[in-house]
Amino acid sequence: MNEFTITFLPEKKTISVDKGTDLLTAAIKSGIHIYNSCGGEGVCGRCKVIVKKGEYITERSGRIPEKERKKGYVMACRTTPESDMTVLVPEESRLGDIEVLTEEAKARRLAGLYTPAERIEEERTELKEKIFRHGPLSTKLFLRLPGPSSDDNCGDAERLFREIRKNRDIPVMQMGLANIKKLPRLLRESGWEVTVTLGNRNGTAEVVLIEPGDRSEKNFGVALDIGTTTIVAYLVDLKSQKVLGAKASYNPQVDFGEDVISRIIYAQEQGGLEKLHHAVIDTINVFIYSLTKEQGLTLDDIIAVMCAGNTTMTHLLLKIDPSHIRKDPYVPAANFLPVVRAAEAGIKINPRGLLACLPSVGSYVGGDITAGILSSGMDDMDELSLFIDLGTNGEVAIGNKEYFMACSTSAGPCFEGGGLKSGIRAMKGAIQSVSVKNGKLSYKTIGKERPRGICGSGIIDALSAFLKHRIIDRSGKIKENDICGTRDAGGVKEIVLVAKKDSAIGMDITIDENDIKNLIHSKGAIYTGIDVLLKESGYKKEHLKNVFIAGGLGTALDIRSAINIGLLPDLPEDRFKFMGNTSITGAKLCLLSQEAMEKASLIANKTTYLDLSVNPSFMNNYSAALFLPHTDIELFPSVKKIL
Amino acid sequence: MNEFTITFLPEKKTISVDKGTDLLTAAIKSGIHIYNSCGGEGVCGRCKVIVKKGEYITERSGRIPEKERKKGYVMACRTTPESDMTVLVPEESRLGDIEVLTEEAKARRLAGLYTPAERIEEERTELKEKIFRHGPLSTKLFLRLPGPSSDDNCGDAERLFREIRKNRDIPVMQMGLANIKKLPRLLRESGWEVTVTLGNRNGTAEVVLIEPGDRSEKNFGVALDIGTTTIVAYLVDLKSQKVLGAKASYNPQVDFGEDVISRIIYAQEQGGLEKLHHAVIDTINVFIYSLTKEQGLTLDDIIAVMCAGNTTMTHLLLKIDPSHIRKDPYVPAANFLPVVRAAEAGIKINPRGLLACLPSVGSYVGGDITAGILSSGMDDMDELSLFIDLGTNGEVAIGNKEYFMACSTSAGPCFEGGGLKSGIRAMKGAIQSVSVKNGKLSYKTIGKERPRGICGSGIIDALSAFLKHRIIDRSGKIKENDICGTRDAGGVKEIVLVAKKDSAIGMDITIDENDIKNLIHSKGAIYTGIDVLLKESGYKKEHLKNVFIAGGLGTALDIRSAINIGLLPDLPEDRFKFMGNTSITGAKLCLLSQEAMEKASLIANKTTYLDLSVNPSFMNNYSAALFLPHTDIELFPSVKKIL
Repeated sequence: MNEFTITFLPEKKTISVDKGTDLLTAAIKSGIHIYNSCGGEGVCGRCKVIVKKGEYITERSGRIPEKERKKGYVMACRTTPESDMTVLVPEESRLGDIEVLTEEAKARRLAGLYTPAERIEEERTELKEKIFRHGPLSTKLFLRLPGPSSDDNCGDAERLFREIRKNRDIPVMQMGLANIKKLPRLLRESGWEVTVTLGNRNGTAEVVLIEPGDRSEKNFGVALDIGTTTIVAYLVDLKSQKVLGAKASYNPQVDFGEDVISRIIYAQEQGGLEKLHHAVIDTINVFIYSLTKEQGLTLDDIIAVMCAGNTTMTHLLLKIDPSHIRKDPYVPAANFLPVVRAAEAGIKINPRGLLACLPSVGSYVGGDITAGILSSGMDDMDELSLFIDLGTNGEVAIGNKEYFMACSTSAGPCFEGGGLKSGIRAMKGAIQSVSVKNGKLSYKTIGKERPRGICGSGIIDALSAFLKHRIIDRSGKIKENDICGTRDAGGVKEIVLVAKKDSAIGMDITIDENDIKNLIHSKGAIYTGIDVLLKESGYKKEHLKNVFIAGGLGTALDIRSAINIGLLPDLPEDRFKFMGNTSITGAKLCLLSQEAMEKASLIANKTTYLDLSVNPSFMNNYSAALFLPHTDIELFPSVKKIL
Repeated sequence: MNEFTITFLPEKKTISVDKGTDLLTAAIKSGIHIYNSCGGEGVCGRCKVIVKKGEYITERSGRIPEKERKKGYVMACRTTPESDMTVLVPEESRLGDIEVLTEEAKARRLAGLYTPAERIEEERTELKEKIFRHGPLSTKLFLRLPGPSSDDNCGDAERLFREIRKNRDIPVMQMGLANIKKLPRLLRESGWEVTVTLGNRNGTAEVVLIEPGDRSEKNFGVALDIGTTTIVAYLVDLKSQKVLGAKASYNPQVDFGEDVISRIIYAQEQGGLEKLHHAVIDTINVFIYSLTKEQGLTLDDIIAVMCAGNTTMTHLLLKIDPSHIRKDPYVPAANFLPVVRAAEAGIKINPRGLLACLPSVGSYVGGDITAGILSSGMDDMDELSLFIDLGTNGEVAIGNKEYFMACSTSAGPCFEGGGLKSGIRAMKGAIQSVSVKNGKLSYKTIGKERPRGICGSGIIDALSAFLKHRIIDRSGKIKENDICGTRDAGGVKEIVLVAKKDSAIGMDITIDENDIKNLIHSKGAIYTGIDVLLKESGYKKEHLKNVFIAGGLGTALDIRSAINIGLLPDLPEDRFKFMGNTSITGAKLCLLSQEAMEKASLIANKTTYLDLSVNPSFMNNYSAALFLPHTDIELFPSVKKIL
């Protein structure tokens, strides 16, 4: 028998394949998207599936621990059937398809189908890219050198420098011994036509790379957003300034702790720092490997990596001890990290390629926030603006071109879909908006797929709808109502948003009172952060002309809903601008423009860090914010009207 | 039997020693100086002796090749007698005692017993050290950092930078990842009291090293003169600016070729570059090891190395392919070499310590000449000066504060005692002056020791005396005369300077017609170089207000003799200034002063390199100079008078 039937669970999709066809290929053919960053080469170990029935041949791999192997886990790309098979594709193997979203968003934009949030994001991005002068972390320059003669017999290195200076105004230039060693042969074998890569290293220019011939078109870099919960990578053409591809996945450090504090603690354990470091580096390497492969590039073509991440993430990226970040008085090893060779951190690109990180403000306001402020442009404005990152740490910054003040609120991962019973990241099948229509709950999913869970924007919408229609009271307790069913699940009341029969995951999608409590704590922390920053700056919320909102919580954040639950201050809706993932945007801007990077340094330098844990007014205000929208309803007149 | 008699040849000194006493110790006890840079630890392999008779126990060592082992070569420090022994201490194992000279010179200076040449050298050196602002390649700074608090919680790296900037005006500062990684722990364990080492790396400051506590007194560096024939190292206290010790020896690359051309050719052979590189690095490492040991320092205490050498030597030092130096149009890989970690070149000092090289002018005018011009101070003078390095390459430079022109004459190693039958380096026992007294040849040796050979200054003196007293004619032929004996040795006429019975080496010390021919070629090349530089610059010799002479040819160069043989132009004697080894002096100045280093760069940049091999007037003039003093006696009126 040379043909077998594979049944994929939970979809129960079946497909017939020849003997010798691997399960990853089978899944793709049957329309099931399995995460395969390495292109099915058995490298990344991300295409794990669980064999429920059938005979098969598989390759053993260190990527699958013994414990999992016993449960039937195999790498789909390394497994071929020997009989008909039934295979479960687990949730985690379906993650990491931000590229799908990107493609979808692109298609919709081409069709003129913007969401208001997307329109704003696009306008801002375009605006910014016009503002910052193009000048990437590494630039390539094709040079035709005049060959030496007895009248012009300076050294090879001096000849190269002289020619570079004819093209660029660079008084101080460095070149390492490795490049000098290969210079004589390279120059002569290439007929004195070479491409030099100039990198910006901590304020001086370095000749990073010398290649024979004209390679000036081949200049690529990677922008990274290393979040506590997710990692995003963009492959960027540094010459055309175009994003060629994107990858995203959960940060595998999650295995060692959900938040930065637990990871810092883990880093103190024997081998802990090493493990956390490798978790993030391995993911980055898989991303870069598959991004380059998709574009027909090699790793050697990638010469620059720009990373935005919170302070703990950048410490772990570079394997720097983060322990003092969580010890009073909360000091990082460095806010400004030097530009190093990416290879020094274990990142596999061109061996001489550079790695830079956006500077942090302090232990709990990192390079991701610097990136966000940079992306918003609020540092150039006369008027007062607020920046909110609805990520795991919930950072908030206030300021204008004169000053900045920022704090971290430890909001938790709710707005990224974390820590909730049915929460998922903003991805295909995620419920991104919830409303009550004709007396019934109604929802929309990303990509109009069968629902698989609820993402940040959906949960905010849901909470707002529940409150408005008295499905919950102002303290978050679930009430008997006519709109949706409620039930007791092991002593905890819950609302069924999607019944098992309608969901894509073979079970109910629900929100329970614990979820709501989590959400109230998160939104309360962020609101109080905003409140304290305003008070410390001597302003009132009415002074805020712009509120920039960043985060991976979905493309459809409803500002009205966010005000209704008391997450955002009660201001006219047109003052709010949803920016999407500003961390990756800022990383891209700094990768493409040294001017942007200098601006980021200015921002980090001029921002005052406010430590809420020692701020007396924070705790006082925080408990008052643990109500929907707030204990003092007068702070939310527009919500008072609705209720 | 527990006591044996050791007889050392050729001195035939005997000493009784206990069984178990090594031959090095025995030699030292008997007053014989054997080279032992590693202090008798079996590391350097320089204390080779040849066992002629007797039983012994020895350690096998890779330092002694099979070929030598068969001839009875052993390391003196690793060999103990098992019977009475007869041991020959070969010439090469007696080399490398410049420290003896230094000590002797120091003692004489303290006693006010200067030679005129020494006085000038000392005055110049003192003058220069006053001119250049103290600012070594690496400086140490002790810092008491304010510890962090909630009001002052910047990152550790930023705290360190801030404190450095309170002391130094350094806008751009770099710190590598390695230092950032160890910073948090180091700062806290040291109670926020650390010593930072700041290094100047290619125009920017680098935090090279961070040590706990106050280590600011421990700042040491090494100045190197890497000559084609000899290598000299000074251990320098970078704080007090004092030279603590010195080492010198032949450059072991001599084994692979006498001059730079033959070494460049050797470097093209399989493994050749590697061997040449290691030959010089191993010597440097032995020097640094023993210099630090003598001062009770460790290798970690040495943080900076400054090297002056000709262009080929610096290429080989850094293992850079030198092949194009000898290929038309004679181009080095680099004249200006970057400051690198010494470890990158294999030099064993502090693993983070720096290595810098003085810049070269071109392929045949290297950093040693830049060092020489810098040491002479002629680049600051309005008046025209000439600089002559009587080393293997015989470089000549002319100029003033407006311009410089330089060339290399390939003079050969005669003036360093090389290539002559009885030639030796300027060391104890070297004949340094020769005259005719009471109708007989008379000589003086360095240290008033029994003569062991003749060094550069002695040979110039001898030639002048021979010419004056018609022992040779103006073409260099030896004549029958009443002053000294002449004889035929295998078809070549020779003069016996010292008979076997009076010499320390067990044989006659002689000068033959081949030696004289070599000398005439050497002096002719240098004289013609001077002549061409004058003509190219549009000057006559009378315009030269100063003639600075550098070289390791001895402390007693007699200017009159040098003019008599036509090596130096016929000018009043007070215009000549003998400078000694200006390569090591320049290296020391640049190690101690960044201002000096910048000056050296200026000199290298503003000097025009003249290639004599393509210069038509060189060949025309050269043959005319192959006469004593010159074919045209009218160019030497003072000599004409004597003759």
